[in-house]
Amino acid sequence: MTLAVRYTSARTLDTAPARTVEPGPGQVELAPAYVGICGTDLHIFHGDMDARVSTPAVLGHEMSGRVVRVGPGVEGWQPGDAVTVMPLRWDDTCPACRAGHQHICQHLDFIGIDSPGAMQQRWTVPAATLVRLPESVPLDQAALVEPTAVAVHDVRRAAVSEQEKVVVVGGGPVGILIALVARAAGAEVRVVELNAHRRLLAEEQGLTTWDPAVTDVTDLVAEWTADAGADVAFEVSGAAGGVATAVDVLGVRGRLCLVAIHPRPREVNLHRFFWRELTLVGARLYDRSDFERAVALVADGTVPAQRLITRIVPMGEAPAAFEALESGGDVMKILVDCTDDTYKAQGADA
Amino acid sequence: MTLAVRYTSARTLDTAPARTVEPGPGQVELAPAYVGICGTDLHIFHGDMDARVSTPAVLGHEMSGRVVRVGPGVEGWQPGDAVTVMPLRWDDTCPACRAGHQHICQHLDFIGIDSPGAMQQRWTVPAATLVRLPESVPLDQAALVEPTAVAVHDVRRAAVSEQEKVVVVGGGPVGILIALVARAAGAEVRVVELNAHRRLLAEEQGLTTWDPAVTDVTDLVAEWTADAGADVAFEVSGAAGGVATAVDVLGVRGRLCLVAIHPRPREVNLHRFFWRELTLVGARLYDRSDFERAVALVADGTVPAQRLITRIVPMGEAPAAFEALESGGDVMKILVDCTDDTYKAQGADA
Repeated sequence: MTLAVRYTSARTLDTAPARTVEPGPGQVELAPAYVGICGTDLHIFHGDMDARVSTPAVLGHEMSGRVVRVGPGVEGWQPGDAVTVMPLRWDDTCPACRAGHQHICQHLDFIGIDSPGAMQQRWTVPAATLVRLPESVPLDQAALVEPTAVAVHDVRRAAVSEQEKVVVVGGGPVGILIALVARAAGAEVRVVELNAHRRLLAEEQGLTTWDPAVTDVTDLVAEWTADAGADVAFEVSGAAGGVATAVDVLGVRGRLCLVAIHPRPREVNLHRFFWRELTLVGARLYDRSDFERAVALVADGTVPAQRLITRIVPMGEAPAAFEALESGGDVMKILVDCTDDTYKAQGADA
Repeated sequence: MTLAVRYTSARTLDTAPARTVEPGPGQVELAPAYVGICGTDLHIFHGDMDARVSTPAVLGHEMSGRVVRVGPGVEGWQPGDAVTVMPLRWDDTCPACRAGHQHICQHLDFIGIDSPGAMQQRWTVPAATLVRLPESVPLDQAALVEPTAVAVHDVRRAAVSEQEKVVVVGGGPVGILIALVARAAGAEVRVVELNAHRRLLAEEQGLTTWDPAVTDVTDLVAEWTADAGADVAFEVSGAAGGVATAVDVLGVRGRLCLVAIHPRPREVNLHRFFWRELTLVGARLYDRSDFERAVALVADGTVPAQRLITRIVPMGEAPAAFEALESGGDVMKILVDCTDDTYKAQGADA
């Protein structure tokens, strides 16, 4: 018998026996090892996405694991292979797909939201979603590949280049990952974050941080850039004040990359967009090249995944982990350990 | 004695004798012929820009005219040459200039707002601002070069390409010019405009228009694009509803070019920017290449300038013309005839 962590209704998760799904043609059965809890998972937990999610819903899309079985016609994968999953299925026929933007397909199936996710001991997915992990990457660290792919995509959408001055507004997991990826692209980076624990984590990685509660970020950017303003800002906070800061810090022709989800319209200083010829660019998810780059960045230590994992909890403690993240305390990334001891005992796990 | 139309205080213009300014080194004295009244001039007339404008202020920056005298060291210009003026002076030292974006210099002198404008019978300006007009272009039509340069710049900023579907929200002078320039770039264009007179003018130019008061523009775009959404939208209305429409009509990776001035922050559906990976790009003014392209478009009839000129009024009737434009009636472009009869009698004018 295998287990799954399931969202059943607002603020309620349970751990229940799950039916394993025989891998059909083109599918593989995986044994998830570690599954990260993401901001979107928290939105679901809040009950904010009940219109989209069919309950009971198995959550989880930031994962690492191993192949257990491959279905008919699947080539290139063997039981035991270490993998992560790019959790997107597109229809290949909508206008977005036809324009080559499958990752924002107008009928996207985001696996882990629109269909069952990884927070279970067996998970059957299309082989096309698999991304190979080098054996050198510990599976817990590999659970950070998915959010790293988000950051890679965001930095690419903002076209960050060497020597550019970049302000990241919001220093949670994705914000820090963006800062690290932008720095790896040669940019100078500042992270704006209210939470002292998150600032400390960023500082430990050599990033300079600013606390917007005690400093005027616009003044600091003016000083830092000799009044030119920043080249790029990332809005990763999801807050109204974060949008305002990200607009205010930009210099002429600056680019604002919008990463956070703002469910309701926000007031935006459009005059400044006109006056300085700013650009706002929305960024969502990733494509396979972003995922493969993310694997490389975790593998080579550019992303210090181990430092970003606050703790790893067993499946039964997932509800408490969701509550800890929801309370906004001193946490960064929490992983749920879905490792199946039976499978582990077979020696196939690291 | 020469005359000037002057803004003296909110809602007050007078016509008064003006001092001619001897052209100094690098300067030329012009005899303005026709000067268009622009939306920014209306903002000044309202009193909205009193903090920026020193009264009495000679307005006007959409002009055509002829060279009267050239100052020391000016080469390439002769009395009688037909010209328009790109009314920008930059400091060449600010971060914007150093980055190659002189037209949005952080200390820009916009001639006609920050320093005396063209609505007078003699006007002394730096020779570097002159743009040559072909003799084939009547001077009244040439007064539309400046707003056409705005449109050229906007279409370039939005990177409009062939076959793209473009929605222009707001069919005033700049909106229609954008529509014409985008069509010349090979795009399919729709113009959204409340005013029936302006819609009619656009239709006469072969443009399809939509009245947002009686149709659902988003539905029309969905039908027009087979649910893909538009590639590009231009927000030229300055209205909150215009921003919403411009965002709502865009397809995946669509670009919204922000042309209108929104003095106060606007609510923007940022979630859609995220979800569809939209881009918002601010566009302001123009550079010399835009101006030269605009001259060519007026000269070859791509821009039917004559059809966009509602009427031409003498200097003494400028106040009534400002009031007519302010009331938002059935007007498109109004020109003020600043032709100096003395000079005209010399036979140098067309």
